Amino acid sequence: MPRRYAFVRADEATHPDSIRATLAEFISTFIFVFAGEGSLLALGKIYGDLGGNSASELVAIALAHALALFAAVSASINVSGGHVNPAVTFGTLLGGRISVVRAIYYWIAQLLGSIVAALLLRLVTNMRPVGFYVSHGVGEWRGLILEIVMTFGLVYTVYATAIDPKRGSLGTIAPLAIGLIVGANILVGGPFDGASMNPARAFGPALVGWRWGNQWIYWVGPLIGGALAGLMYEYMVIPTEVPHHTHQPLAPEDY
Amino acid sequence: MPRRYAFVRADEATHPDSIRATLAEFISTFIFVFAGEGSLLALGKIYGDLGGNSASELVAIALAHALALFAAVSASINVSGGHVNPAVTFGTLLGGRISVVRAIYYWIAQLLGSIVAALLLRLVTNMRPVGFYVSHGVGEWRGLILEIVMTFGLVYTVYATAIDPKRGSLGTIAPLAIGLIVGANILVGGPFDGASMNPARAFGPALVGWRWGNQWIYWVGPLIGGALAGLMYEYMVIPTEVPHHTHQPLAPEDY
Amino acid sequence: MPRRYAFVRADEATHPDSIRATLAEFISTFIFVFAGEGSLLALGKIYGDLGGNSASELVAIALAHALALFAAVSASINVSGGHVNPAVTFGTLLGGRISVVRAIYYWIAQLLGSIVAALLLRLVTNMRPVGFYVSHGVGEWRGLILEIVMTFGLVYTVYATAIDPKRGSLGTIAPLAIGLIVGANILVGGPFDGASMNPARAFGPALVGWRWGNQWIYWVGPLIGGALAGLMYEYMVIPTEVPHHTHQPLAPEDY
Amino acid sequence: MPRRYAFVRADEATHPDSIRATLAEFISTFIFVFAGEGSLLALGKIYGDLGGNSASELVAIALAHALALFAAVSASINVSGGHVNPAVTFGTLLGGRISVVRAIYYWIAQLLGSIVAALLLRLVTNMRPVGFYVSHGVGEWRGLILEIVMTFGLVYTVYATAIDPKRGSLGTIAPLAIGLIVGANILVGGPFDGASMNPARAFGPALVGWRWGNQWIYWVGPLIGGALAGLMYEYMVIPTEVPHHTHQPLAPEDY
Repeated sequence: MPRRYAFVRADEATHPDSIRATLAEFISTFIFVFAGEGSLLALGKIYGDLGGNSASELVAIALAHALALFAAVSASINVSGGHVNPAVTFGTLLGGRISVVRAIYYWIAQLLGSIVAALLLRLVTNMRPVGFYVSHGVGEWRGLILEIVMTFGLVYTVYATAIDPKRGSLGTIAPLAIGLIVGANILVGGPFDGASMNPARAFGPALVGWRWGNQWIYWVGPLIGGALAGLMYEYMVIPTEVPHHTHQPLAPEDY
Repeated sequence: MPRRYAFVRADEATHPDSIRATLAEFISTFIFVFAGEGSLLALGKIYGDLGGNSASELVAIALAHALALFAAVSASINVSGGHVNPAVTFGTLLGGRISVVRAIYYWIAQLLGSIVAALLLRLVTNMRPVGFYVSHGVGEWRGLILEIVMTFGLVYTVYATAIDPKRGSLGTIAPLAIGLIVGANILVGGPFDGASMNPARAFGPALVGWRWGNQWIYWVGPLIGGALAGLMYEYMVIPTEVPHHTHQPLAPEDY
Repeated sequence: MPRRYAFVRADEATHPDSIRATLAEFISTFIFVFAGEGSLLALGKIYGDLGGNSASELVAIALAHALALFAAVSASINVSGGHVNPAVTFGTLLGGRISVVRAIYYWIAQLLGSIVAALLLRLVTNMRPVGFYVSHGVGEWRGLILEIVMTFGLVYTVYATAIDPKRGSLGTIAPLAIGLIVGANILVGGPFDGASMNPARAFGPALVGWRWGNQWIYWVGPLIGGALAGLMYEYMVIPTEVPHHTHQPLAPEDY
Repeated sequence: MPRRYAFVRADEATHPDSIRATLAEFISTFIFVFAGEGSLLALGKIYGDLGGNSASELVAIALAHALALFAAVSASINVSGGHVNPAVTFGTLLGGRISVVRAIYYWIAQLLGSIVAALLLRLVTNMRPVGFYVSHGVGEWRGLILEIVMTFGLVYTVYATAIDPKRGSLGTIAPLAIGLIVGANILVGGPFDGASMNPARAFGPALVGWRWGNQWIYWVGPLIGGALAGLMYEYMVIPTEVPHHTHQPLAPEDY
């Protein structure tokens, strides 16, 4: 199925590049979840309850996730591709951009990074991590569709800015676009279902805080959304590369 | 009228590049409107009424639009030019940067993207989209002028950072400048007329929510503002290119 | 005094490049002041009084200025150098980076851009522009020092990121650094003296709203701060270029 | 211990490059601390007490630090490496990226920059600088761990985006990633311990405001976190460069 680039190197499981990439995913997911989940606990420290009940709390939560994800993707994009999210890894796997072995490594690293972040937060804040749940009156299937749609937007952005072989200088700002679309989507989805878009982001705090309500939504939704975005971008947006195709990349002034 | 670059390729209507570009406009407009309109509904979920009645609500709305538009333009700029806005398409059409056929394709894709975003928002939030209207005491013609002025600033920024043949490395941050000027203008125009600057942004939620009050302002204003910016930049700022003109691009240290 | 690059071309006053650059300064200052001053009026529309009395109002004002200045500098940096501020023009004049003729052109364009922005704001909002004044209990000389210090930081950033001949790829993000340091400084100086850092930003709304209290501070302070930054950066940070000096630009990995 | 690049030039202490770099660290730390500490005083001016008691105050403080640090790092990264933080200097020293002589120069410049910023703030605001302390009910060792973890994330980001020899075009956005991860971490740590991550940031206001409570945490924590990040990135993420190693930098599409 993978159309190009993907292959299994005999030594991939033990190659230093794989180890480094896996370590980078672990640390970047740790940095992201520490700030994202931590911002909820910080609001809990200020107000005495869980955050998100006012516009300014929503802005604080969205900014914490957006800015930290930007830094986390920046810090790993040249080493691991900067996934920091099992749904991104799943989309790029279906699009044939990474191997199954590497995807499994990344998933484990992402989940472990999230768990360690949640454990450290519990230690330093002495508070129970919050995790994600669907708000009163929303309903699970609405939350599921919301996660699918928001993760589609995220992984589509990842593909267009960080993976598309014709991305050119756009790759320079890819980590920023990835971080900020998550921030924008939290400003939409936050009051409805928390807006995770990332199974690792949801899993660590759920495990450490032992709050599992609606957890399946935050796995199924992002994986479906990431898969749709990866397949659509890979097979509908990226032009098929034919060896004798000599056209230059499409630039805005070229049409 | 088009001075350069624009032409009609016999096969443009069916060329794969046109199809891909149209798809990219559809998806990017969908991502943008989903976050922009969705942020209004999210505040409605928190407060029980429509947003924008406090500084923190205004910041949340401005950030949702700005961050999502940045990601949406990033995700399409290399494929379609990253218009995500019929007024941008109109300005570049008048400036001779795209053909009429492609402009029509883009307009349809942008309107469809906005409608689908509004439909999905209605589905997942179970709320009626808000759309745009002129605030009490403002008056339609004031709203019209406001839309003209704000869209002029937006499309001028688009032209300078994403279209100007001498933009150089500035093109790398073009999507960010485009997204953030919309955010800045929402912080101005939000309490007066909602600050659309984009007929597609206004149309989808109006249709799905069936709220048409003042809709014409959000078509006429942005198209006039976009046209003024496109024509002014194209004919007054971009130097006429004469074949024997051997000067280098003007850099800040060159004067 | 100018050490390098600056010169007076016999035809500078009428050269098309000068006209285009002056037009670019006019429009970019217009875009910036429209959003900056407009955000104050928007808060006045919401709350019925002038903004800045809460943290969220301060954030809205800082973001409006920061995001709009980023876009305005982006939109003009390749044409005019992206000054958008008489204090920046003054600092680069003293540093020998532009000629006196061009500086005068820029100053006129910047003041006119600010006046037109204030006039249009008065028209569309039907409100009297606010302008700048020193808060109760602060005292004029404190406001003066504050403007000097904040403008020093702004113009130092301009010099380092947009003018330094060794800035390299840093120039790509120069407009963002320039916009965002203004946002950061507004979060400091806003409650004390409004945090202008820009005589043009202060002048237009003062003229149109006819509110002149403390206006001199917003001219003397930024010009002193800009002069200090320009001279310090030009003569203390930029290494003297000696023809036989063959060292490469200092990169982080070079020491 | 330093693996590469680091060396002691006989003339380093008096070389013009060292003087310029030290001056750049002084001014950039001044710009950063002026905005960061100043934002606390600005909220004190509005509310009459020290900031951070609401989500919107937290956002204002986080943005002031993030935006100013971005500008400060931008303004010095090409001259001094853009440390603006003794913990960053310590991490790069342990990683072998700078010499001991230069590290001592930087530390002195960073502390002086912070002191001068705090003095000027006291002058213009007539308020006593706030400094950092651990919130009621948090406990010193929790604050210490928090500073270690947050500074680890910061210095890891510095290393990955600004120092890694394979960072490529990522270096263009390094100052932004560095500034924004500090903003994200303030949104987490602010309500618990103020979130300094920077001994110079903590020292100047403590000295000028003569508030020394818990000061040791803001030295020990960041230096440990910075050391851990520097050593981990240097020895575990950066591949050992062997002369006959001919592989290209790992790009996202290469696996």
